Amino acid sequence: MILTVTLNTALDITYRVGSLRPHASHRVSEVTERPGGKGVNVARVLAALGHETTVTGFTGGATGRVVQELLAAVPGMADALVPVSGATRRTIAVVDEQTGDTTQLNEPGPVITPTEWSAFQEAYEHLLPSASAVALCGSLPPGVPVGAYAGLVRTARTTGIPVLLDTSGEALRRGVAARPDIIKPNADELAELTGSHEPLRATQDARRRGAGAVVASLGPQGLLAVTRDGRWRATPPTSVRGNPTGAGDSAVAGLLSGLVEHLTWPDRLIRAVALSAATVAAPVAGEFDRGVYEELLGRVAVTGEASAA
Amino acid sequence: MILTVTLNTALDITYRVGSLRPHASHRVSEVTERPGGKGVNVARVLAALGHETTVTGFTGGATGRVVQELLAAVPGMADALVPVSGATRRTIAVVDEQTGDTTQLNEPGPVITPTEWSAFQEAYEHLLPSASAVALCGSLPPGVPVGAYAGLVRTARTTGIPVLLDTSGEALRRGVAARPDIIKPNADELAELTGSHEPLRATQDARRRGAGAVVASLGPQGLLAVTRDGRWRATPPTSVRGNPTGAGDSAVAGLLSGLVEHLTWPDRLIRAVALSAATVAAPVAGEFDRGVYEELLGRVAVTGEASAA
Repeated sequence: MILTVTLNTALDITYRVGSLRPHASHRVSEVTERPGGKGVNVARVLAALGHETTVTGFTGGATGRVVQELLAAVPGMADALVPVSGATRRTIAVVDEQTGDTTQLNEPGPVITPTEWSAFQEAYEHLLPSASAVALCGSLPPGVPVGAYAGLVRTARTTGIPVLLDTSGEALRRGVAARPDIIKPNADELAELTGSHEPLRATQDARRRGAGAVVASLGPQGLLAVTRDGRWRATPPTSVRGNPTGAGDSAVAGLLSGLVEHLTWPDRLIRAVALSAATVAAPVAGEFDRGVYEELLGRVAVTGEASAA
Repeated sequence: MILTVTLNTALDITYRVGSLRPHASHRVSEVTERPGGKGVNVARVLAALGHETTVTGFTGGATGRVVQELLAAVPGMADALVPVSGATRRTIAVVDEQTGDTTQLNEPGPVITPTEWSAFQEAYEHLLPSASAVALCGSLPPGVPVGAYAGLVRTARTTGIPVLLDTSGEALRRGVAARPDIIKPNADELAELTGSHEPLRATQDARRRGAGAVVASLGPQGLLAVTRDGRWRATPPTSVRGNPTGAGDSAVAGLLSGLVEHLTWPDRLIRAVALSAATVAAPVAGEFDRGVYEELLGRVAVTGEASAA
């Protein structure tokens, strides 16, 4: 199985309203709920691609119970969330039907105690030996030490499990130094890490900081990968219109599934770009459109070169 | 005990955000949750006044479970909610810390099946004999027949239990014809019922439609009561600044507690106006400020006259 870690799990709620106006009262016409947080989104895409996945992180309170009930209903996804005394956070996306715009309200989430953080690390160590790869995704909840991902990367490397890190800020800076196999920053995260806004230079710099491979996600411009096997750029054939929420998580799922299937780097990047674009095209945020995905697989352009052996 | 009926129960969630801007992403700094719906609010005030109360209506899904957990924590309030297959609705009040404005998002709530509606009526008939009074509060959820309150009023009258109806639109129109002891419309509800925007005329007209007493809530102008014992107007001493959410529900609690304590109409109105104003003054929507309440009790002005015996 593939293990995904989401320390800041969430219940993602979407409301549709006619038109959102501050200080007014709104009748919500449609409510949808799904388990969220970046690693959960990655796991959902992996499961849809036919990979057995296990989700870990934290769960608490009534919202945590709902997240777990919803996870139990997804085939191919196992729930290994660790219980905490605080309540799992909700995120609310309010979709304005008139403009199509989304307004986001994100709860802060629970504070993790030192005992809960230790219990998580123990659970993680028990799960790792059954994993073919692990993804560490998203922000750290309050109470979790900023070096958390660095520690989780080291544990995975000690166990010999390939590890992908997708986070930002200081958690990314420290995590990279622990030498994860892959990091997947977006342009902003990359610039914050390296100080450079020039994608190729920043990607190379990020790799020098310790990552085995750096795959930078550049939005509609696709992916730029600098690895020990070579460097490549993969771009979707056309600009896809839609909602970019979850496109980065789908790219992570593409990279990770490609890794465990022993695909070449160009093939991993083609899959990641196609999944990412098919997620933008899907009507539900974070889902991917399978028809678009399969059609794009043959149309993603990859340029670049393998390193001299 | 006093029985309150809330067919459209809710979990009332309040979010504080720095400044609400459509199409932006917001970090919620504070989350508070309380059981809601008009009859639940009435019961909370009654319990705070020292009256044993029982809450009935519907509960369903994960949100219903949270409502019931929160109800269990309130002393003096018993939970007699009837389970349904749909999920209890959430309401979200987003408070803008910069302006103090509130933006409201209300979920639609569950559709009640005919079997669930029958189960509720049976539960209601079992509860009534232990009640000293009953309040029927708020809107009807989808699936409940529009004549629902008329039926519940008749059942209460048959059992000999005084019944107060606080609803609007067609549910109020039909409910009044079943001759409830008291109705408590606000100015808009009264105008919709009678077609008149002149408060005294509309209140008298509403009474002719079947209500034993009509107590019109006129916002900062207080209450206007037309009853078989006489007619009165009760006004707070000064305009109270604050959040009017729940002020009408507090007035209902004042009227109902006054009824079971056999207060005179002027004393019931003084209590209702003082509670209402103390609710506007309270920092938390729907709570009342006990100090303001006790201070106002001596300062509410009542004018009017008893009918000739």
